Order: sequence, then structure tokens, then C-alpha cells
Amino acid sequence: MITLRSYVAEEFVAGGGAQAVLVNPATEEPLAQTSTHGVDFERALRHARTTGAAALRAMNFASRGSLLLAAGKTLHAHRDELIGLAVHNGGNTRGDAKFDIDGAIATLTAYGELGQRLGETNHLRDGEGEQPMRSAKLWGEHLWLPRCGVAVHINAFNFPAWGLCEKAAVAWLCGLPVISKPATSSALLAYRIVELWAQAQLLPAGALTFLPGALGNLLELLGEQDVLAFTGSSDTARLLRRHRAVVEAGVRLNVEADSLNAAILGPDGEEGSEVCDLFLTDVLRDLTQKAGQKCTAIRRIYVPAERLDAVLAELTDRLAAVRVGNPQDERVTMGPVATRTQLESVRSGIARLAQTPGISVAAGGAEPLAGIAAPEGRGYFVRPTLLVCRDPQGASAVDEHEVFGPVATLIPYSQAAEAISLVRRGGGCLVTSLYSDDRGFVSEAVLGLGPYHGRLFLGGAKLGGQSPGPGTVFAALNHGGPGRAGDGHELGGVRGMQLYMQRCAVMGYKPTVEGLLPGAARGR
Amino acid sequence: MITLRSYVAEEFVAGGGAQAVLVNPATEEPLAQTSTHGVDFERALRHARTTGAAALRAMNFASRGSLLLAAGKTLHAHRDELIGLAVHNGGNTRGDAKFDIDGAIATLTAYGELGQRLGETNHLRDGEGEQPMRSAKLWGEHLWLPRCGVAVHINAFNFPAWGLCEKAAVAWLCGLPVISKPATSSALLAYRIVELWAQAQLLPAGALTFLPGALGNLLELLGEQDVLAFTGSSDTARLLRRHRAVVEAGVRLNVEADSLNAAILGPDGEEGSEVCDLFLTDVLRDLTQKAGQKCTAIRRIYVPAERLDAVLAELTDRLAAVRVGNPQDERVTMGPVATRTQLESVRSGIARLAQTPGISVAAGGAEPLAGIAAPEGRGYFVRPTLLVCRDPQGASAVDEHEVFGPVATLIPYSQAAEAISLVRRGGGCLVTSLYSDDRGFVSEAVLGLGPYHGRLFLGGAKLGGQSPGPGTVFAALNHGGPGRAGDGHELGGVRGMQLYMQRCAVMGYKPTVEGLLPGAARGR
Repeated sequence: MITLRSYVAEEFVAGGGAQAVLVNPATEEPLAQTSTHGVDFERALRHARTTGAAALRAMNFASRGSLLLAAGKTLHAHRDELIGLAVHNGGNTRGDAKFDIDGAIATLTAYGELGQRLGETNHLRDGEGEQPMRSAKLWGEHLWLPRCGVAVHINAFNFPAWGLCEKAAVAWLCGLPVISKPATSSALLAYRIVELWAQAQLLPAGALTFLPGALGNLLELLGEQDVLAFTGSSDTARLLRRHRAVVEAGVRLNVEADSLNAAILGPDGEEGSEVCDLFLTDVLRDLTQKAGQKCTAIRRIYVPAERLDAVLAELTDRLAAVRVGNPQDERVTMGPVATRTQLESVRSGIARLAQTPGISVAAGGAEPLAGIAAPEGRGYFVRPTLLVCRDPQGASAVDEHEVFGPVATLIPYSQAAEAISLVRRGGGCLVTSLYSDDRGFVSEAVLGLGPYHGRLFLGGAKLGGQSPGPGTVFAALNHGGPGRAGDGHELGGVRGMQLYMQRCAVMGYKPTVEGLLPGAARGR
Repeated sequence: MITLRSYVAEEFVAGGGAQAVLVNPATEEPLAQTSTHGVDFERALRHARTTGAAALRAMNFASRGSLLLAAGKTLHAHRDELIGLAVHNGGNTRGDAKFDIDGAIATLTAYGELGQRLGETNHLRDGEGEQPMRSAKLWGEHLWLPRCGVAVHINAFNFPAWGLCEKAAVAWLCGLPVISKPATSSALLAYRIVELWAQAQLLPAGALTFLPGALGNLLELLGEQDVLAFTGSSDTARLLRRHRAVVEAGVRLNVEADSLNAAILGPDGEEGSEVCDLFLTDVLRDLTQKAGQKCTAIRRIYVPAERLDAVLAELTDRLAAVRVGNPQDERVTMGPVATRTQLESVRSGIARLAQTPGISVAAGGAEPLAGIAAPEGRGYFVRPTLLVCRDPQGASAVDEHEVFGPVATLIPYSQAAEAISLVRRGGGCLVTSLYSDDRGFVSEAVLGLGPYHGRLFLGGAKLGGQSPGPGTVFAALNHGGPGRAGDGHELGGVRGMQLYMQRCAVMGYKPTVEGLLPGAARGR
């Protein structure tokens, strides 16, 4: 069993005291232990603020972009090893592991390339200049300038590689040192990434601090130029929103919380149509990929009432072919959930939905499951579960209770307006997908659902086999939805950099203002 | 004594129970009473959400822009009456009153014109489209779509007209109904504006709700599509940040808090230079305008050490000419502060700073003051007060304690880097002004201070007499600073609309996405 260590001031230091144990969720075999007890958080922060910040600020977008490209290449060179760790510690199938690791590499690469396009400057112009008064002498330019603090990243357990890299890529590109905390249960993969980067010596000193465990008093030490970016549960998000650092010290907080993402099969989604096939493929992928543990996964599936039974039959058939077990066995197509806590939470969540009047289990369920190629009685296996709720107005539980596992509910609707109003009841989502080639339906749904979403995925026949599905997060596209989803904004290319920058209007005599930062990149 | 009434569902309703009394702060004469006790907040909210939202959404940017222009014209037609109310209830000089009311009209007009430029659509495109994957088939557009909730506005006492109108203009342009709460003490002016708009019947039903008093359970009723925009003290901001509506219900909160804005005289600001004159004029204006009760007012004044005494002498001279009293008397150049509470807070704030070792009073002070043309012993008059802190490293009180009145502290610096580091100690400001024509100094200061500010004002000789000073907020320029200033974003033309909209990435087959909203305006 290895010991994960914190990475502070370019040294790996083991924490003392009680250790948290990381296991293989398919076998419950202990893999590693970790603790951040005794780590000098104050020193870690000081090192990031001084050494790290100075080094990153001495660079520009282009050179920091090169750094990101190199960081991505390092992961690519060790891709097989990293996949192995994700299978072991994450319960990932090889496909799940690639999704996480390739997502991490793609995001580093995309932001690396963006940095090179932005060029040898440290600042962005925000849109056109403005003339604030009648006098043409006075002029204003809006600039985005990098904040002078550190970026503290609290990541979720489901994407140890992607989560680390997508947050770090954007903060580094802006010139902020990163303090990254992985979820403990799956930290082995993130730890190895940090080791690889440290060995490659590609990051400037102080650019990265890694704390695989509790954050101690770190948040108490943050101030008004720092950024806290969190991905995880709504419950933890609430604690952070109320935290003194955010309420009183002016730390900027971004939240990406799970949400009740929907998929809607349009009125033209006849059985056997291309659009219906795409819909079925995407729904099945989202149910089983990462054992449903994606913040973007489809939780609510809306289909025209007259096609409910056909879709139900088709999905049930396809789910019957899913083989749950230890992903080290080649037959397995869906791994376990990440932890015992998740197992219990998912099973009680299924039971809770199934007990709601009007909701019934069409496939799967909360009963215990023995995984293929897992030791008897071991492993956090859950049945991929499809529920059905035939009276869409009746069961608000599907709009309120998220089960973070391979679980979704099928719901009929009669008209576009009804589908829109049902999806809205989820209170804000990261992404919803529409499967239709009916222009009228698509534009009504985009306008009706857009204000409740950070992203909408339009699945049409013309996409053919090239659809990544709604659950894939892209560096170039906004990630983060309103309300329940946390009201955060990440990624979206240059848009995601705003979290780490300050928008400042600079006004004065027009030639002075215009001549001020001739090299600033156009942010938009 | 008139009774202010709430404006709910196109009716004016008087509240019951104990009444708050509004006075003339120069004479303490009671002017009006108000209460929102017994107002049906649930009904008010429902009316806004249904009738108001439907009417505003049926319009587009251009037609809502026309509405804003008409709302501005209504104020212009009653400008003299409104000025009279501001003098009476706000303790404003006529100049102060015009600043507030003309600011209100200018903002309505600017957003009205912006609406007409944006045209007959309801949506904005956010920057260029993005290709998220290698396949050129898949395409993403970022749209800003109006949120489907209401905008609740909590305004500060210092700008009853401007505060109401600047917040309402942006929300209405986006299509959100407004529920506006003025600060009680100075609500007479805002109330009269609402009456004028109601008489003119220019707003669609439900577009405006006005609540001149406590908000009762209103915030408890808000949800994830609603926006809460607050201007006022950091203490109230903290309460709102911790409010269940924000922490749990997903209400989007924007905070504009007061801050310790600075002015820096550059190394080239020799005595008698144009840039030094501009600096002295702006500092004096900010000290006395609105009796220093502007969230953007200069609180900390930095000058090259060798010019400290000359500047001190000049400012002290100019301050000696300020005549404080009842602004209905033509001799008066500075009115009282707004309330007895403010009077006490400003006087104790001055005393606190003056008692700090290293800080001394150069002009004014905390002693009681009889106002010109005010009844004996009445009126909330404060001496315009200049403090001096000769050891800039010694007295952190000037960076921590804001006195919201005619009070500022003069501080020497030796080099640009020191001035930057001193200003930064304020922890985030709405605006700081630089008085210099030295390009190197200006660009160093812009880069060093930009991350700590929402706006920087460059006062150079070339601006000549056309400088509005740093304290004027413009519709076209960002308003809101990081950290202590609340980390909000308002105004800035189209940028300010983002608070009331949701950024949503729409992705799919390229021609479908591109053809989706052909009329959407370019947001940037």
C-alpha cells in the first residue's frame, strides 16, 4: 500500500496521524493511504503566493500555453499507466478511464493552444471601447486583468484527472498558482499525475500545490484576490457559500454542482429513426458510463407519451446486456460506484424514488448485486436502473432527488411546452439534450430551456456517428448551469478565464487609454 | 406629512402598523411616513412573475429600449420638482440633486439607446462560435438568454433616483420585472418617480413593484431564476450572502458595497500643473459632493512625499471655503448627511481615525457643527474633514475603516510601487483615480491596480475641463469592484445585462446551431 503525499514547495511530504485508506471499489482491496495532517498550510499558501505567482506572472499567455501543452504531453506519454490506476482506484472500465484521462489531456491542449493564440501578453480586452459621455475626448476600455491571488481547487471523486487538469489549465493560463485538492477516495490517479509533472520539472516552482486530504485551516487564510473553485455536491457547496472566507474575506467562489440533467426525444423521434437511435445510444451511455457518476449525466428522460412503451422496451432490452463487475475483467461493461458511501447513497436513492407513488422500477433496482469477477460479497456494485413515472405532473421526486449513479427516470410528455415546463422543474441543470430534427420544436426548446442551462446539446440525424453525447464537457464550451447546478461558469474557451481575472474599466483621454496596453489580446 | 405607499399590481397601497418617518436632514422636520406592513408580498411577487414577466417578454430589446427612453423623458419633464424633493429629503444641494437625477435620466437613456441598437430580438450572442472537437460538423454558439425570474433591487440611501433607475433600466431591458426597495430615509424621491411613471402609464402591468420599507418574507419566496441586486453596506451584504435564498434557493446575488477608493497624484503632478489642478478639483468635489456620501468617493489620497505639505495646504485652503448648512439656502455648498445614524457614524468614524497613532486632523473634525440656515441644534451637519497620515506603513486604519461622509485621508508615497501596494491594502475598490501624464507611471499603476478595481480613472492634462471626476458612474462603463467592494458587476453597457441573463452554450450540427436564432444581437 503506497502513501500519498502532499506536494508543497516542490517537495512531497507525508501527513501524520490517522490515514484515510483508498481502495479498489471492485474488490475493496486497500490501495493507498493518505493524510494532510501536519502539513504547513500557511507555508504552502505563502510559497504559492510569492514564488508561484511571481514565476507565472513573469510568463505570458503564449508561454503559459506552452506549459499546458507540455503538461498534456506528459500525461499522454504515461497514458497506459494512468488508465491502469483509474481502473484500479476508480472502478473505471478502460473506456471510462480513457474518458477521464483523454478529457484531461484535451483540456490542457485546448487551453495551451488558446494561450498561444492569445499571444505574448497578460491581458484581455473585453469587447469594444466605449464613449461614456458626449465628449469624444473621454474614452473607456474594459480589460480583463489576472487576479493577484491563488486558485484553490476542490475536485470531485468522479474525474480525478479531468477535474484536476481542467481547473488547473484555466488558472495557470491566467497566471494564478494552483492549490488542488482531489477527492480522497479516488486520489491515486491525481497523485500520480502530480508526480509525473514533478518528475518532468515542467511547472515553475510554486505553480502547483497538491493536498490529498483535508484542507485544515487553508480556507481561513484566503483573501479577496483568491479564487475558490469547487465541483461536487450541493451540500458541500452550501457550506462553502456560508464560509467566512466567501462571506467576509471576499474570496470569489465558483460552484459546479450535480444537477438533474434531462434528455428529450422530440415529436419526430419515431422508432427506428436516426434521431431516436442517437437518443437511445446517448441515454444508455449516460446511464452506464462511469457507472452514472457524471455531473452531466442524464437523470430525466422525456419522450412523447405515445412512444413511452416502445422506448421503455428498447432501453430495458439494452440495459439487460450491461455486464456489471470488476472492470479488470474484459467482459465487464460497467464498473462499481466509487465508494461504500456512494453505494449506500445510490441504493437508498433508488429505493426512495421507487417508493414514490407513480414511479416504478422498469429495470435494475436497489437490491444487492454481485459483480462479475469480484470477490464474493465485495465491491460497490449497483444495477443500472431505469425508473418510469407515467404521470409527469404527479411525481416531483424526480425533479428534486438526484441519484448519483446509473439511474434515470423515463417520463412521458404530450407537447413541447409541457416538456419544457417539466425540465425546468429541475431548478437549473448543467446540460440538457434535445433529440429532434424538427426546427420549430428545437427552437422553442432552446428558448424555453436556455435560461435554465449552462449547455444544450442538439442531437440531430445529421450528426450521425459523430455525436459525443451531452455528457462530454468541452474546453471550448461553457460548463456550469444556474440554480441547482451552482450558477458557476467554467471553460468555454476564453470565457472560462474570467473567473480568474478582474474586469476593469479604464477611462480617460482617448489616445491615452487606447495606447495603454497595445498588446492586449482580444478576449472576445 | 404624506404617506408613502407601496406600488403593487398597479395600485398604491398604504402599509399599516408602526410607520417609519422620513425627515429633512437639514431641519429634522418630518416629511413623510411609510410602512410596508400588511403588504401581500406573495401576491406582489406572483403579479410580477406572471403579468409583468409575460408583458416584458412579449417585447424585445428595441421596444423595451423605447420604454426606457420614455421613462427617462418623464423624469426630465418633472426635473425641477424632483430636484426640490432631493433637496428636501436628501439634504442635497441643487448640484447634488442634479447629479442624482440627471444620472438617473442618463442611465435610462443610455440603456434605452442600447436597446434600440440591439434591435428586435431577445437574445445576445456571446462572442464567436466555437468548434469543440476535430469534426467540423459539431459547432457551439454561446447565447445570453434572459432569466425567467424577477429582479429584486435593494438600493442605498444616497442615490434614490439613480439607484432605482440604473438597476431597473438594465433589468427591464433584459425583460425582467423589477421589485424595487429604496432606502427608507430618502425614499420620497424614488416614490415620486414611481408615481410619475404610474401616472404616465408607460410601464406594462407588473413590470414594477415598489416597496418603501421592510421586505417582509419576500426574499424567502425567491428562487433560482431570480436576481437580487444590492447596493449598500458590507454588513448588509454579508447578511444577504448568508441568506437562505442565496445559499440554498440559488438566487443570484450581486453586491455593490462601499469601498476605500483612492486618488493618486503622479510623480509629475507639480504644483500649479494642469494635472495637479485636476487632482485638487476632483478630490475636493468628492469630499463635498453629496456630503461625501458616494460609494465611489475618494477616501484615500496619495501624493508624492515631497508634495505632501503643498497639497495639504492647498486642500485645507479650499476646504475652508466650503459652507455647510441647509441646502435651501443659496450660500450653502455642502448639505447635511442623510440621517442621524449617519451623522453619528461619520462623527465616530472621524474620531476613530483621528485617534489612531500617526493620523492627525488637518481640517474639519468630529466636533458638532451648526449648519447655515438650519434651526438651532438641528440638522445632521458634519465638517468636511481632511486627515493626514505621514507614515503610510504605520496606519492600517485608513485601509480598513471607511467613513461614509465628507472625510478623506492624505498619505505620502515615495515610488509608484509603494503607491500601488498601499492602494491594494484597501482590499478591492470600485474606482481609483490616477492624476498623471507620465505614461510609464500610468501603465504601471493600471496593471498593478486593475485587478483590485472595477474602474480606473485616468486624469491627465489633456482632459482639461471635461473631466467628470472618478466619482461619476457611467452606464457604458463597468461599476463594481472585487473584494471589499462586493465583487459585483453592474452597468458597462451590454456587460451589465449579464447579471439578468444566463450564458448557455448551444451545441450541435453546425448549420442547425447557426440557423437557430438568426436575429440574436451581438452581445460583444
